[in-house]
Amino acid sequence: MDEFLEAAIEEAKKGLTEGGIPIGSVLVIDGRIVSRGHNRRVQKGSAVLHAEMDCLENAGRLKASDYRRGTLYSTLSPCDMCSGAVLLYGIPKVIIGENRTFLGPEDYLRSRGVQTIVVNNRECCQLMKKFINEHPELWNEDIGR
Amino acid sequence: MDEFLEAAIEEAKKGLTEGGIPIGSVLVIDGRIVSRGHNRRVQKGSAVLHAEMDCLENAGRLKASDYRRGTLYSTLSPCDMCSGAVLLYGIPKVIIGENRTFLGPEDYLRSRGVQTIVVNNRECCQLMKKFINEHPELWNEDIGR
Repeated sequence: MDEFLEAAIEEAKKGLTEGGIPIGSVLVIDGRIVSRGHNRRVQKGSAVLHAEMDCLENAGRLKASDYRRGTLYSTLSPCDMCSGAVLLYGIPKVIIGENRTFLGPEDYLRSRGVQTIVVNNRECCQLMKKFINEHPELWNEDIGR
Repeated sequence: MDEFLEAAIEEAKKGLTEGGIPIGSVLVIDGRIVSRGHNRRVQKGSAVLHAEMDCLENAGRLKASDYRRGTLYSTLSPCDMCSGAVLLYGIPKVIIGENRTFLGPEDYLRSRGVQTIVVNNRECCQLMKKFINEHPELWNEDIGR
């Protein structure tokens, strides 16, 4: 498996062991992971730290030219907020673990020129299916439902 | 002037006195301000805490039914990320101080059913014009340019 997606899955599992929602993300620039993150809704009582946002936050203040060479990995299809962050910073490529348990605005990302690839990874899907089944209310809160 | 926009402007000014980017936001539910925020890029070294995001984060974990009754005020036209957060949580209404110094995806918000109103407030505009003139590199960083 892609080592970067593997790192994102590690982040998702870390979130799960903390009692959080198992979604992970890494930002790769020039073939190197520059930042990692996972959903912190439970851990930090956060409404904005989805995995991708946590990853971008942990990356700190990067230059526009850094983002422009970046690939954002996420174990789950990015929601409207996280997709918006990708657009804000002009990140040109997103690799998505799965989009079966949740489908974000992937077509909109593509229409705005972001290369958006879904790999349909079984482990990503199983992590979310189990979590949603066990904590539906928490999951709904995370996606504003 | 609208007391809620006035509160958002107060937040913008608070940001400025902290050495930050002068953009403020408040979230109003049932005619009451439930949360306030301002851009924290400089103050917290944050890549995600735009004013609207800071405001949503300060609101804590709300219910979907709370967001659905909300109006988000911002002194400046929300960027892709902040607009995405509005869509994620299904906030039905956004009041924008000005969109002359920066124009976010307002038409996209409208196409997704968000009532989006621009009031073209002179003070909001002057705050940003002065800031952009004095700190162009910081402003460009904040919008991924």
